[in-house]
This record gives sequence, structure tokens and C-alpha cells, in this order.
Amino acid sequence: MHILVTNDDGVTAPGLLALAQEMRRLGEVTVLAPDHNWSASGHVKTMERPLRVRETKLADGSPALTTDGAPSDCVALALLGVVREKIDLVVSGINPNANIGHDVTYSGTVTAAMEAVISGVPGIAVSLDSKPGHGELDYGPAARIAARVASQVIANSLPEGVLLNVNVPCLPEENIKGIQITRQGLRVYHDALDARKDPRGRPYYWIGGEFPTGVEENGTDVGALGEGYVSITPLQLDLTAYKMMDRLKGWHWKE
Amino acid sequence: MHILVTNDDGVTAPGLLALAQEMRRLGEVTVLAPDHNWSASGHVKTMERPLRVRETKLADGSPALTTDGAPSDCVALALLGVVREKIDLVVSGINPNANIGHDVTYSGTVTAAMEAVISGVPGIAVSLDSKPGHGELDYGPAARIAARVASQVIANSLPEGVLLNVNVPCLPEENIKGIQITRQGLRVYHDALDARKDPRGRPYYWIGGEFPTGVEENGTDVGALGEGYVSITPLQLDLTAYKMMDRLKGWHWKE
Repeated sequence: MHILVTNDDGVTAPGLLALAQEMRRLGEVTVLAPDHNWSASGHVKTMERPLRVRETKLADGSPALTTDGAPSDCVALALLGVVREKIDLVVSGINPNANIGHDVTYSGTVTAAMEAVISGVPGIAVSLDSKPGHGELDYGPAARIAARVASQVIANSLPEGVLLNVNVPCLPEENIKGIQITRQGLRVYHDALDARKDPRGRPYYWIGGEFPTGVEENGTDVGALGEGYVSITPLQLDLTAYKMMDRLKGWHWKE
Repeated sequence: MHILVTNDDGVTAPGLLALAQEMRRLGEVTVLAPDHNWSASGHVKTMERPLRVRETKLADGSPALTTDGAPSDCVALALLGVVREKIDLVVSGINPNANIGHDVTYSGTVTAAMEAVISGVPGIAVSLDSKPGHGELDYGPAARIAARVASQVIANSLPEGVLLNVNVPCLPEENIKGIQITRQGLRVYHDALDARKDPRGRPYYWIGGEFPTGVEENGTDVGALGEGYVSITPLQLDLTAYKMMDRLKGWHWKE
């Protein structure tokens, strides 16, 4: 069992280290992670410029690879041959904030797992539901949950085109109530435009606003986290809105 | 009716001009597009740096706005207030190459339409199925198809969380056989690692390889284009793999 570990916060992030250490209990681990933060950077395939890969070390002294590419580029590079040995599983994270609801197409953590699945390798994304200003985070509980999920994926395998999106409440381990299998819930974004003037009087804009919230509905990722459960949402890469197809067929296309 | 037109190839792209000109027949048009190419850049929300917006002109002399942000940032900026008037519809394109199968999460064209839908505004992505080396492209047929689709969206509206992904065969208008409502098909990527050495002997990597192909299955986007039909695929932002949920519930989570 050879596991590729990556993330979107960069190779020095403590969530990556915690994840890599737990994955080593399950098999051989290669770490290939970005050299800087790619949060909310989406599903990238870098084709307009070449990518560098260099050797580095995690804080525990173990070897790792890092690149100037995106999280999904890390997975592509590894699977295309930068990592010579066959990779059996890709695990991405641990992101310090939840990736729930509409976050999943923006998230570098989730899109890294998507990239694995598109290449035929099982993918798992792992995030911790901490809020801004939480202070130092304990990634231990989420890392141990990630290992349980990875063990189950190794034992049961995943169907083609499906990845697992795992979100863990930011609670002491004994307060986490269990695991719920969930559907994707509803994120509520509170983005606001923050228009400013530079020292030369020219305008520029920050996409600002408050941290997103969510609709805490039963059976969803948002709802599970709100109740203190780990949420595991299976996500698919077939985005077809099947129920909409018949309605569309009834529209007046001849006009 | 106020329509925002954007793309992922940049504000000077001829596909954007053709689309903006056709959309003007349906209502007021504002163009806000990236100042450079963002192909395969994914669903981005730029939060680590501020964004510039400046005024420019399209090749026909009409006013446009351009930004150093991604296609999805263009939509976010416009809807958050850079464009003061209410926007009723977002149309993105015309991309010179098809966005079918797994392309949809990578595509700047499609993720711009996703951004609209997340903000509660109907979104349409339009792409032309040209192959590399085609030479100068005629965006006229695809732009007129886009106007037909937009008219139908205005007349019928779209349910929450659904966008339309439109792909048009690169054929003379009289050879396009009609419209098919399709599901997302299967892209086949032929990416390959192209490892090189820089002038100082240090390695770097291109994600290279051949242009992607697809499985020409009946009822899919790939199949429709292969037969000379326009494909319209409704895409949803709920990626939950519902059929997988029951299987996951049967896994041994207690171990």
C-alpha cells in the first residue's frame, strides 16, 4: 500500500504532518505538496508554465517533495511519474477549515482528491472544522479519523468517479460523537466587496466579508458537524443534473 | 434584462466579442473578463490578494471591464457590486475548445457559470469544439446558439443550483444537426510528463501529452458533438454520490 499525501496549505502546514504520520501506519507514504498556500484555488491543471519539484523535509525530519504547482498538480505530477512507484491511494489535508456545501469545487483539498479519482486512484479529502481565531489546532483526532477512513477505503475500495470528503469537528476526541454518512449541505457565503484606494489614489478590491456559515440540516455535512459528528460525504465527478434533463427537452428549441 | 458576459481566455479573445455582440440582442450587456488566459485554472475565489479592475474596450469599440482575477472572480466582483446594476444572467465563453466530461471542474468557462449559480443568478457556459491547429475560428454559429439558449433560460428560468453547459460542434452552421440534451460523458486525458533540464542543469516538468479525447457514447456531451449536434448538459452543484451513501453506511466504522 503506497499512499500519496498532499494538501492545499503547503508542505510546512501542521495538518499535513499529522496526516502523513498517521498514514505511515497503513503503508508507505510519499508526500508531495505545494510550496505555498493554495486555499480556494480550485481544480487546476498547470499547462501554461513548467513546474519545479524539489526535495524538502517535514518538521519530523521525514523526506517530502514540494512544487510550485497547485494541489491537483501535485497529484498529477506524482501519478504521471515524478513518483516512480505505483500509488494506491491519495489523501489530501488536513485542511484547518471545513470543506462543506459549495466549498467543494473551490477547495484545493477536495480538488486534489478529484484529480486522483479522474486518474483512477481512490481519493480522500480531510478537513477540520475550525473557525478563524481558534489558535493552535490539534490535528490528532482528525488524523486518526483519516486513518480509519483510509483503512475502510483500502478494505472496501471506492467505485469509479467517487471520492470521500471527510470533515471532522474541532473538538477534543472524546467529545466527537461518531461518524455520519452525509450529503452535501448548503454553505452560506457572506462575501462582501471591500473597495480601497492605493497610495496613488487608484481603486482596488478585496473579496472580503465574514467567514461562511451553513444551513444545519439533518443528514448533511453542515448538520453533522453542527451536532459534533464527523461527516463523510461521497462526492461524484458526474455533475449531470439528471432530473433537469427532461425539463430541458420540453423547452422550445425550434424557436 | 442585464447580462454579464465573461470568459477564461481573457478580454481580448474573439470568442468573448462574438458572445457579447449576440447577447446585446437580448438585453443590456456588461463585460467583465480576465486580463489574461486562465484556462484549466479551476473554481477560484481570490482572497490572498486584492484585485484590480480597469476599463478597456472590445475590438468593436464597446466598453468592457477587465481584472487580474480569475473568471469566477469576475463574476464575484460583478455580483458583489463592481457592477452597480442588478445582473439577471451570466454567460461565459465562448471557449475555443470543448468543456465536456471531467473538464467541467477544471474549466474557467464552466466555473464562472458555477460562481453565478452559487450566488443565485442563472449561469450558462458556452464552448466551441475546435481542435488544436484549426486556424482562425468562426464563433458566429456558437454565439447564435448561445443566444437561443439564453432566450430559453430567460423564458423558462433555471432551478437553484443548476447551470447549463453548452458545447457547439466546430462546423459550418448549416452542417450542425440540431440540439441534444445530454449527460456529462467521459473525457480521456492523455497527459504525459515532459521532464527537462534548465540551462543550469536543474530539472523542471511540463504537464504535456496529447489533446484529450472522449468516449463517444450516445446521450452524452461527447457523443452529441461527435455526431454534429450541439450538446446542452445541465450541471448541478450538489456533487453528492447518493447511490454510494448506503454502501458507505454498511462499512465497518466501529473497527
